[in-house]
Amino acid sequence: MEDREFLEKIKNGSMSLDDGVGYLKDYGYKELGFAKLDFHRKKRRHFGEVIFCQGKEDFALAEIFRAFYDRGENILGTRADRHQFNIVKDIIKEAKFNEISGTITVKRKQKALLGNIAVCTGGTADLKIAEEAKDTAEFFGAYVNTFYDIGVSGLHRLVSKIDEINSSNVIIVIAGMEGALPTVIAGQVDKPVIAVPTSVGYGAGLGGISALLTMVNSCAEGISVVNIDNGFGAAYQAAQINRLIEKDL
Amino acid sequence: MEDREFLEKIKNGSMSLDDGVGYLKDYGYKELGFAKLDFHRKKRRHFGEVIFCQGKEDFALAEIFRAFYDRGENILGTRADRHQFNIVKDIIKEAKFNEISGTITVKRKQKALLGNIAVCTGGTADLKIAEEAKDTAEFFGAYVNTFYDIGVSGLHRLVSKIDEINSSNVIIVIAGMEGALPTVIAGQVDKPVIAVPTSVGYGAGLGGISALLTMVNSCAEGISVVNIDNGFGAAYQAAQINRLIEKDL
Amino acid sequence: MEDREFLEKIKNGSMSLDDGVGYLKDYGYKELGFAKLDFHRKKRRHFGEVIFCQGKEDFALAEIFRAFYDRGENILGTRADRHQFNIVKDIIKEAKFNEISGTITVKRKQKALLGNIAVCTGGTADLKIAEEAKDTAEFFGAYVNTFYDIGVSGLHRLVSKIDEINSSNVIIVIAGMEGALPTVIAGQVDKPVIAVPTSVGYGAGLGGISALLTMVNSCAEGISVVNIDNGFGAAYQAAQINRLIEKDL
Amino acid sequence: MEDREFLEKIKNGSMSLDDGVGYLKDYGYKELGFAKLDFHRKKRRHFGEVIFCQGKEDFALAEIFRAFYDRGENILGTRADRHQFNIVKDIIKEAKFNEISGTITVKRKQKALLGNIAVCTGGTADLKIAEEAKDTAEFFGAYVNTFYDIGVSGLHRLVSKIDEINSSNVIIVIAGMEGALPTVIAGQVDKPVIAVPTSVGYGAGLGGISALLTMVNSCAEGISVVNIDNGFGAAYQAAQINRLIEKDL
Amino acid sequence: MEDREFLEKIKNGSMSLDDGVGYLKDYGYKELGFAKLDFHRKKRRHFGEVIFCQGKEDFALAEIFRAFYDRGENILGTRADRHQFNIVKDIIKEAKFNEISGTITVKRKQKALLGNIAVCTGGTADLKIAEEAKDTAEFFGAYVNTFYDIGVSGLHRLVSKIDEINSSNVIIVIAGMEGALPTVIAGQVDKPVIAVPTSVGYGAGLGGISALLTMVNSCAEGISVVNIDNGFGAAYQAAQINRLIEKDL
Amino acid sequence: MEDREFLEKIKNGSMSLDDGVGYLKDYGYKELGFAKLDFHRKKRRHFGEVIFCQGKEDFALAEIFRAFYDRGENILGTRADRHQFNIVKDIIKEAKFNEISGTITVKRKQKALLGNIAVCTGGTADLKIAEEAKDTAEFFGAYVNTFYDIGVSGLHRLVSKIDEINSSNVIIVIAGMEGALPTVIAGQVDKPVIAVPTSVGYGAGLGGISALLTMVNSCAEGISVVNIDNGFGAAYQAAQINRLIEKDL
Amino acid sequence: MEDREFLEKIKNGSMSLDDGVGYLKDYGYKELGFAKLDFHRKKRRHFGEVIFCQGKEDFALAEIFRAFYDRGENILGTRADRHQFNIVKDIIKEAKFNEISGTITVKRKQKALLGNIAVCTGGTADLKIAEEAKDTAEFFGAYVNTFYDIGVSGLHRLVSKIDEINSSNVIIVIAGMEGALPTVIAGQVDKPVIAVPTSVGYGAGLGGISALLTMVNSCAEGISVVNIDNGFGAAYQAAQINRLIEKDL
Amino acid sequence: MEDREFLEKIKNGSMSLDDGVGYLKDYGYKELGFAKLDFHRKKRRHFGEVIFCQGKEDFALAEIFRAFYDRGENILGTRADRHQFNIVKDIIKEAKFNEISGTITVKRKQKALLGNIAVCTGGTADLKIAEEAKDTAEFFGAYVNTFYDIGVSGLHRLVSKIDEINSSNVIIVIAGMEGALPTVIAGQVDKPVIAVPTSVGYGAGLGGISALLTMVNSCAEGISVVNIDNGFGAAYQAAQINRLIEKDL
Repeated sequence: MEDREFLEKIKNGSMSLDDGVGYLKDYGYKELGFAKLDFHRKKRRHFGEVIFCQGKEDFALAEIFRAFYDRGENILGTRADRHQFNIVKDIIKEAKFNEISGTITVKRKQKALLGNIAVCTGGTADLKIAEEAKDTAEFFGAYVNTFYDIGVSGLHRLVSKIDEINSSNVIIVIAGMEGALPTVIAGQVDKPVIAVPTSVGYGAGLGGISALLTMVNSCAEGISVVNIDNGFGAAYQAAQINRLIEKDL
Repeated sequence: MEDREFLEKIKNGSMSLDDGVGYLKDYGYKELGFAKLDFHRKKRRHFGEVIFCQGKEDFALAEIFRAFYDRGENILGTRADRHQFNIVKDIIKEAKFNEISGTITVKRKQKALLGNIAVCTGGTADLKIAEEAKDTAEFFGAYVNTFYDIGVSGLHRLVSKIDEINSSNVIIVIAGMEGALPTVIAGQVDKPVIAVPTSVGYGAGLGGISALLTMVNSCAEGISVVNIDNGFGAAYQAAQINRLIEKDL
Repeated sequence: MEDREFLEKIKNGSMSLDDGVGYLKDYGYKELGFAKLDFHRKKRRHFGEVIFCQGKEDFALAEIFRAFYDRGENILGTRADRHQFNIVKDIIKEAKFNEISGTITVKRKQKALLGNIAVCTGGTADLKIAEEAKDTAEFFGAYVNTFYDIGVSGLHRLVSKIDEINSSNVIIVIAGMEGALPTVIAGQVDKPVIAVPTSVGYGAGLGGISALLTMVNSCAEGISVVNIDNGFGAAYQAAQINRLIEKDL
Repeated sequence: MEDREFLEKIKNGSMSLDDGVGYLKDYGYKELGFAKLDFHRKKRRHFGEVIFCQGKEDFALAEIFRAFYDRGENILGTRADRHQFNIVKDIIKEAKFNEISGTITVKRKQKALLGNIAVCTGGTADLKIAEEAKDTAEFFGAYVNTFYDIGVSGLHRLVSKIDEINSSNVIIVIAGMEGALPTVIAGQVDKPVIAVPTSVGYGAGLGGISALLTMVNSCAEGISVVNIDNGFGAAYQAAQINRLIEKDL
Repeated sequence: MEDREFLEKIKNGSMSLDDGVGYLKDYGYKELGFAKLDFHRKKRRHFGEVIFCQGKEDFALAEIFRAFYDRGENILGTRADRHQFNIVKDIIKEAKFNEISGTITVKRKQKALLGNIAVCTGGTADLKIAEEAKDTAEFFGAYVNTFYDIGVSGLHRLVSKIDEINSSNVIIVIAGMEGALPTVIAGQVDKPVIAVPTSVGYGAGLGGISALLTMVNSCAEGISVVNIDNGFGAAYQAAQINRLIEKDL
Repeated sequence: MEDREFLEKIKNGSMSLDDGVGYLKDYGYKELGFAKLDFHRKKRRHFGEVIFCQGKEDFALAEIFRAFYDRGENILGTRADRHQFNIVKDIIKEAKFNEISGTITVKRKQKALLGNIAVCTGGTADLKIAEEAKDTAEFFGAYVNTFYDIGVSGLHRLVSKIDEINSSNVIIVIAGMEGALPTVIAGQVDKPVIAVPTSVGYGAGLGGISALLTMVNSCAEGISVVNIDNGFGAAYQAAQINRLIEKDL
Repeated sequence: MEDREFLEKIKNGSMSLDDGVGYLKDYGYKELGFAKLDFHRKKRRHFGEVIFCQGKEDFALAEIFRAFYDRGENILGTRADRHQFNIVKDIIKEAKFNEISGTITVKRKQKALLGNIAVCTGGTADLKIAEEAKDTAEFFGAYVNTFYDIGVSGLHRLVSKIDEINSSNVIIVIAGMEGALPTVIAGQVDKPVIAVPTSVGYGAGLGGISALLTMVNSCAEGISVVNIDNGFGAAYQAAQINRLIEKDL
Repeated sequence: MEDREFLEKIKNGSMSLDDGVGYLKDYGYKELGFAKLDFHRKKRRHFGEVIFCQGKEDFALAEIFRAFYDRGENILGTRADRHQFNIVKDIIKEAKFNEISGTITVKRKQKALLGNIAVCTGGTADLKIAEEAKDTAEFFGAYVNTFYDIGVSGLHRLVSKIDEINSSNVIIVIAGMEGALPTVIAGQVDKPVIAVPTSVGYGAGLGGISALLTMVNSCAEGISVVNIDNGFGAAYQAAQINRLIEKDL
């Protein structure tokens, strides 16, 4: 809830003074004992706090989702499994789940998607991370185009798409194994490339470390890198850049 | 030289047909035998090729600078030492040198600097990398503000500057040792943070690997990372983003 | 049992001479064949031996707990699962279990808790380690205050607690992912900080190695570090320091 | 200068109002452009900022020492070489230099040393780090006892000193190669051990990483660890603990 | 079967010429298609080939044990589970199993055990590896004494046994976590120490790499090291040395 | 289908024009949405695309095999499990499965196998990788000879086979643990050796990294290396070389 | 000297029987005390022993070159510096030196170069390694074409050369930094690619380890890899393959 | 000096009572302030303390050599340079220096060398380490045979020496690069092999780590390993074993 929206509710009586006092008590963060929910984050950072579901205990997951829901926020949960989604679903009927990425979304106020972010993958095995990136970017208001399985071992697939990719504001490139795709794309475009190494591969792939190193050492300019399998992180920054370009301030 | 500029020269006779043919021969890249200069890069990527001076032999350095100069380009050379600068200076009188960063710049057509990029460092030892970032961002047309020595061990220094930092389009954060600064800044702003780990430190710092890992694993959203000591790379991407926000297309 | 307590029992006849001889036979250590229990440790180190339960076979676990119990000691077992607790419970009725940390405690003589140790965590996922630290510090006689989920991505949560934290004798700071929290806290306080990296995270977190490196390389003075996930170890040393400050000699 | 001292000078006129305004201008930190000196640190952290000399350029070193000197502070500089000391000596006549450790000290007000910190080394090659620790602990007001070359390959040397070591408030243990000494000492004492791995060794010593791992994984309780060769860091924390035990608040 | 024994059987007719031809056909190695059993190893190396059971498929395990059995050899199988032992038991009635170490032994001709090898462990968690070492050394004809749980955190346990340990021909020292025990023992004895790092530990223990590094970097002379958890390898070499000292040529 | 074969079908009417248009639509690659099948690869690289089954979801596996089958191609799938094979079997009756290697093959047009590739292993535990290499090399038209369990600990096994091995066009050498076999073989032959490190081993084997390093650092000339457990990759290149030697252009 | 050539010399008396006996004495290897020169290698491996000059002491270098020269062989020395070349030059007048690669060659019988090997580099900094590869391949009888500075950041440079590259028998691809070039080339050709990672780069390039990992994990088939900076090793194997294709047996 | 020798001197008056008291004062260890010389080591460990010269300051080196000399001991110093030897030479006329290994020896009482230790190397670059091993083994009373440059790339060199090597009591095998030699030798002998990895190599050799891993993971039984370049350590243990076999108790 925006500050203005809150104050208007108080002024016009649609929120009681008591509820208002309760609301302001958690204005900075809500203390749950085991957690401190950062309701202030949206004010400070434009995008609100996101729930990393993996590893959270059932009771904690439920309490956290409920607290955000009660606050009237759109909610994004990442890396959930179906069991966790069911817990959320019991509390929030309109929650939606992406089986591939494990993303839970609750959208109560939806603005039109703006701008354009490209999400590219080297192979089909990177799909899970790509979908997490897509869900995240859309949650934060960006329009997304996907370009899956355009890895460098069959360069014509990539070449046939390069103009379309370069018509985006930001380009997310996801790749495992040797991780060369961001380098090849960045060399052909004039938009920022955010590279996501994935843990796809085996042996000397070292669970994605090899792809991470490749991307960090790229000989092509215009690439920055996030953690292995961190589709969320790449999309968050891409959405930041996209909204600045689209003047969504 | 822009395509239109070239064609106008031919049309109005300020460039002979023979010179025009020579110019077009290297339109894609100029073959030097030991190197292939990518004159096409500027067309494709908006920003032209940059010369990484470190380790280049004297004859090669001279030939490459001369070829770019003859093409009529602004030139950026990074990681040069004074010996190398003297070689360049002999060829190009207007070349300038930043002793701290080792950057050589030749600017023949200078447009007004646009937008705003913040360059922040954790300590004074990161100065060399910060200056490389500043030179690069300015070369690519961005206005730069610097915030040096605002490391997290004295948080009030950072806090006193945070609003000014967040008024930028993009924030470059440079830090060695434990590399925590990008995380702390990103948590307080709504602009993209590009983090640069440095090799400053000793022992378990592992020549910057420790800071790189810190930044890649950050718990704060909105951070992407470049190679250790790669002030150039961070500034290149920051300038890309800055020009897109400023609609310098 | 203190030496004086033992001798008094002999003197007043509440322990027979035969039992006394048996007791002295194990004065240095008790030989179990597969293990040598270090009963002498408490005398030498002020704090007695602790039982690391993880990976111990059932019969061994039972024998070791029984031996300590027969010796009349308070007992601390760490990293037990519920199956192991049930084995202990069958032997020692008053044993207690912390489901989150996996700690088993048997306290027969409880002194008032002294001093003050702060246990801080960066996120909710560090809870398990934090509870192990809390149980351990209390077992060794320290009063504990907890400050959970005050990670650096929402600095106001930390700032609102910093004076309370600094009113402790020692500060334990537990964090995974990029592990920046100990650095930020240490920069604001004048008490020793013992940092515990956790294995919370993924990808380039390397199972906690990244956080460990961050903490070891901290630019803030006054930090020392223990093993990944070693809440016990941090609390042990914190309790040592706490008791020295409180003159519990 | 303590706040009270400052205010008394203003009150009794020994400092002019103009000088007082200048003093307060830098109360938080002094802006040098390339650096921000944290004069507030002493207030916040009890111990003031220390100057890490290594790698600092001559002009910067001079400016920083002068600024601290003008502020009327005791000054500690670590990891200086003789060239750097000479620069400092030109500015501050009473500066002293420890050739082995590279420590520069300027002490204008010296209180009696309190408590007792033990500084132990495994071998003679760890001397440089041990002296840095000794200088630092003394600078921060602690009395220091040294126990050099008591490594575990000749256990009787250690055993002959163990009671004396354990009579300290805190024990710093410095060792390279396999780094076993902190473990052996901690098993025999009831005081906190701060372990310093050193880069002494070769081959699989990995520049101290091996000793660092040894210390972090110690089977003996009561050990925490600082960075490789970080004698300063260990002594800083030891001095913190020492002053708390000695009630120097 | 020794060569002389074989020839005597032929001479006295207890083995037919046809069987003799078959026996000689596999004199160098027996070809099983998926494996080549090195029957010649015992002749060349004094000790025969040993079967590493872990990961072997059931049919392969059976065929290999049967082939060795048919050859009339004593057999040692390491790292077997109970399922595998049952397969072997079906073929060879007199096979024996050590549940802790997973060792299978078939001894048809048993000579008196010679000399003396000490097997020491730092903790109870190293038991599995210690038993593998013990089984192996005995299989190869050495008498073994065990000294379990004498880790360095309680030095008096070790000190009370050191003379007995040093009365052996060779000393095997097994330790996980920080792996300091071999160093401490080697410093007190005049017999060769073979050190076995174990994967016991967690976090920065890195699955035994930390203990391995500790042992390889030991400041005490007279230590050599084998692979992590390789109790077999240590015992093999100890038995080699033991038999040379005992003149069992 | 070769281009000529396609055109002949159109010319003689055995393929309708409509089917021909459909065929040409996918000439470069077939777009499946989640994947882009590279039908052009065979034309460009002589060998067509291979399906890496591991980790593929059931629906994707089915669609991909069907698409290749419909195209009339021979098909090779690697690293499949039995469940995946059953899915394929339902679609393609003539599919064959190698239980050990997990390879699925569909061969509709089989040419005579040419040349000779040797597949050698150090031990029986490398069998899985060796069979993958064998299946792959045969799929790509090479005749294969296998030499299993000729590891260097029993050199006579290797020596007895060396002439036969050297009579091949290319030699694939597969080994885990210390990975010395490729070095020893390469030193005795005049044919190229392609080395495959395997993850066979434990402890400091680091999942095959140790063997990979061994092979890359070999003191014997004529060795190149592929990823850990990458029997497919070694055989692919061996088959490339084999067909060039055999003039199968 | 070939065996037949030797025997003919004896038969026709151009070599005395005494010289023949001396020659045969070293037929297997020549014993120099500090070295054993493997004259037999050429017979066994088709290509003779090569001298790795780096780190050899002057006297040893001289003795080894002289011994090979006296044997009447063509000689290849790699990684020599000018000082070392001068030593060789004093002994062997016709020795030649490549300043860039540090290769010394002595060719007394030169056959026509056969076949065709492509040597490609990603950047100009890889020149040193490329020249080593070129010298080596030519020494072993292969014709070489070079394609320098065709890195993936300017893909059109590579594309313009790809058909010419693919007309070779074998393709050597040399690249530092992120090491993506071998993958991109392999995806476009039907010839074997031997990849050479170089130590060119900085920071997370880890002295070439990053490029090595990239190449080993390549998603393109048909790549095998040699050690970092090992231009010699790649060229040796390429020459082996080239001669087999050219039927130079 | 043996205890008996000392007491006889006292008894027969060749040492005064005062000198005897001084001698006994340092019986356990001699306190030099910066060092504690372990004179008791020889009594405890049969072999006395050895001086690791590398990195020692001049004054310390002089004092330590003088103290040992005054005690009447044979002295071994390792890893000295010529400058250090000159310092020693000024104090001890009979000191000898091995330029290759950097070993300083002072032998005043020389017993006949016993038994037989083989020192083998893979290449000529391992010479420095081999000579250190040889000097050390001889210092501790063992007869040594050397087998240099018998690396596995020319197996016939090794095979021609294997019987001679196996006639030793212990076999030291020194190798860099891929480090395969200990494995190949151990597979052919029935004596213990102590393997020494060396830092010889480049690139992925990782300064000897690769060879160390190879040796630790060896598939051949009977190998134990010491630190990279630790020729001293291998020889120390070999001499221990040799003297036990030779019954030099």
